[in-house]
Amino acid sequence: MFLVEGPASVEAALSDPRSRIMELLVSPNLLGREHAAIKQARDAGIDVVEMTRDCFKKVSDTKAPQGLAATVRIPSARPELLRQPEALVVVCCGIADPGNLGTIIRTADAVAATCVVTLPPSADLYNAKVVRSTAASLFHVPCFAMSEEAFLDTAREVPLRLVAAAAHDGEAPSAATWQRPFALAIGSEAHGVPESILSATQTWVTLPLPGRAESLNAAVAAGILLYESVRP
Amino acid sequence: MFLVEGPASVEAALSDPRSRIMELLVSPNLLGREHAAIKQARDAGIDVVEMTRDCFKKVSDTKAPQGLAATVRIPSARPELLRQPEALVVVCCGIADPGNLGTIIRTADAVAATCVVTLPPSADLYNAKVVRSTAASLFHVPCFAMSEEAFLDTAREVPLRLVAAAAHDGEAPSAATWQRPFALAIGSEAHGVPESILSATQTWVTLPLPGRAESLNAAVAAGILLYESVRP
Repeated sequence: MFLVEGPASVEAALSDPRSRIMELLVSPNLLGREHAAIKQARDAGIDVVEMTRDCFKKVSDTKAPQGLAATVRIPSARPELLRQPEALVVVCCGIADPGNLGTIIRTADAVAATCVVTLPPSADLYNAKVVRSTAASLFHVPCFAMSEEAFLDTAREVPLRLVAAAAHDGEAPSAATWQRPFALAIGSEAHGVPESILSATQTWVTLPLPGRAESLNAAVAAGILLYESVRP
Repeated sequence: MFLVEGPASVEAALSDPRSRIMELLVSPNLLGREHAAIKQARDAGIDVVEMTRDCFKKVSDTKAPQGLAATVRIPSARPELLRQPEALVVVCCGIADPGNLGTIIRTADAVAATCVVTLPPSADLYNAKVVRSTAASLFHVPCFAMSEEAFLDTAREVPLRLVAAAAHDGEAPSAATWQRPFALAIGSEAHGVPESILSATQTWVTLPLPGRAESLNAAVAAGILLYESVRP
């Protein structure tokens, strides 16, 4: 299970047919008013647990808890999504910073990506900061962890074209082919896309750096490439 | 003054002719080896202060201090940069999250922007987390705060075309004109670009959101638009 906090994310979890909410946690004092999610949860047969302000603050991971949270069962992995004929898969190759991982999931949702796959040593998808940074997108786009071996085996078998963001010597994103299906591999902040993924990659893209910065933030690089891939 | 930590940022501060380093702080135990920056600072007549590991840890804002830091004088604002004929100015309209602000500065550096202007209520440019997130870009691209009034007066006077990222009803970034000079206004996470800036704006751009996310992270949106503006 993992904890989801705040009205927007709880609503997203409630409306996601694949999310299984275990308990809705409510602190009437903190929430201030009745919230539609409470009735919706009761109608769906979900346990609603009322808590004092102090108790809710102990459960919450945020500095200013809003009084509404839910415990949600971690969904199963869906590797079959890698086989969709129009797949746009985002592959996080060791994105260790929870804020970056959450932000990548939010952008993947914005461009209607098929799914987000995390490979080790990425941050845990259900880390509180990841959940918060996704801004509810965790319930819009399927996200799951795979081992590198399982991912590469599936990609080879489908076959699913791999596009990797490389620090040097790749094509300019504006010149690259973004025809689906493909999987976009985003490298870790410290080490980039690992050699094992690069050697299985068909298309290498490199973001131009006309200024003096040596690299971009991983979530920014992912955003630029994902938007390039859906550019008209 | 503000504090700059880690070898890469200290080196960037040392090589920036406009940065005035007050003191170089060194903990030989933490640093482990002699570092070129120490000789460079001594040669430049900068005081080098040696510290014990414990003392350095008290000064440092990071969890794993690397034993090299510098106190740097806050540079003066350079509003004259808004008058450059080929200006690409990034205007942060109340970017409150230090990580987002630092990441926007890093991307502005990557595309060789002319300068980054922060308008209230943006985070302080010299907040430790901003400095860290810029990954040395704070010494590559001039960054300074302005009042909204002073910014709008200057933009009107030059005149400098304002391009604003709006949540709705703007042009698609791929269809917009990115001819310089222009200033790109990035709105706050919570409230977007304020009405006062929007009403002085000539070009509104809206990032398409074909998926289910209601918005993008501010630093990701800035990155996509800045890269669109330098796209061949």
